[in-house]
Amino acid sequence: MPSPAFVDRVGHAFRRPELLLQALTHRSHGATHNERLEFVGDAVLNCVVAAVVFERFPDSPEGELSLVRASLVNRDTLARLARGLALGAEVLLGSGEVRSGGDDRPSILENTLEAIFGAVFIDAGFEASRIVIERIYATEFANLDPATQGKDPKTRLQEWLQARRIAVPEYVVTGIVGEAHAQTFTIECRIPALAIATTGTGTSRRAAEQIAAALAYSRVAAASSGAPGG
Amino acid sequence: MPSPAFVDRVGHAFRRPELLLQALTHRSHGATHNERLEFVGDAVLNCVVAAVVFERFPDSPEGELSLVRASLVNRDTLARLARGLALGAEVLLGSGEVRSGGDDRPSILENTLEAIFGAVFIDAGFEASRIVIERIYATEFANLDPATQGKDPKTRLQEWLQARRIAVPEYVVTGIVGEAHAQTFTIECRIPALAIATTGTGTSRRAAEQIAAALAYSRVAAASSGAPGG
Repeated sequence: MPSPAFVDRVGHAFRRPELLLQALTHRSHGATHNERLEFVGDAVLNCVVAAVVFERFPDSPEGELSLVRASLVNRDTLARLARGLALGAEVLLGSGEVRSGGDDRPSILENTLEAIFGAVFIDAGFEASRIVIERIYATEFANLDPATQGKDPKTRLQEWLQARRIAVPEYVVTGIVGEAHAQTFTIECRIPALAIATTGTGTSRRAAEQIAAALAYSRVAAASSGAPGG
Repeated sequence: MPSPAFVDRVGHAFRRPELLLQALTHRSHGATHNERLEFVGDAVLNCVVAAVVFERFPDSPEGELSLVRASLVNRDTLARLARGLALGAEVLLGSGEVRSGGDDRPSILENTLEAIFGAVFIDAGFEASRIVIERIYATEFANLDPATQGKDPKTRLQEWLQARRIAVPEYVVTGIVGEAHAQTFTIECRIPALAIATTGTGTSRRAAEQIAAALAYSRVAAASSGAPGG
């Protein structure tokens, strides 16, 4: 059973605690595993985050809202939030997954956290899941600074780094697939001084760079709440 | 302004009617257009449909839930539902779009209907949008026959056709892009007797075929409420 401290950190009193148990169960551990709840939770998370960015960025076009959302619901962010909840200690894994370090694998942390959001939705509805998501994402949502509105993620990241006298990122093409008229670009945004490398994929170099930059910005902004120049 | 009969068909009394007007405004018509609302509505629709298929298919794995949802939220289905609401007559388009038949273009119908779902969400919250979506999708949700649970879409489509003595579909590869380890397949499911051709894309032939079959099944099931053999 999940520890009481963990249940407190999730912050929802389950009417059906078996839903939380199912959300914590990886398919390697049992037949009643969390993949169906993850399907629901992924959709709920996308919807809650869409509503938040719509409200916080009243003047941004749809493309910017999509970028901001992508930076909030990607694997890196979800795994980091899961680690903040000490989720790895609660996940139920098969013995092979335990031996191979599954309790700290980003994909497992991501999927399990989404499954928890889905379990809250199924247990108590949309508003209950919105409250849980807004609490777990409190720092990330607070970092959606309205002052950065209208600035694209590359610009925003560059300004953040320059304010701290850190070298600007390098953008490296790591993959191009597809035929000439339908290519997909993969770009890595590298900030060696912070040991950060994030990956964006898009139908143009620019789109892929912006996504990689948004992911990097999300990492730096979440890791630091200090003032510039520190 | 939208016609009162159309507002009745949408079935939501807007506190802020300007949101419905914005949802009906294509970017070719004015600066306050519907793309931001479409971003929200797409997420709301995915969430509502995820919850419906989760509940209706209690024994289906996540992959099956994804397929069913894909068949419900794709462009063909949304454009058909939009035509059922006579949405084309209400869309506000620039003159170029009017001349080129934009009021019946599937992409415009799809995006506008999603924007309406988003407008209801912003106006009155998740439950209000769920009610509107469930009413507009009433036939589609009713056609999610629990008896077909556990059958994959190709099997379900084939059985539906055989029960009506219609020739089984042909699956044709119409595109393969990407390198050997990361290919994307596009498959067309053709039912000449019904003038239906649907397209599925996936990372394997089988996945693409299943999606194309799910789309075709959604078309035939929605078009016909008659008994087999008719």
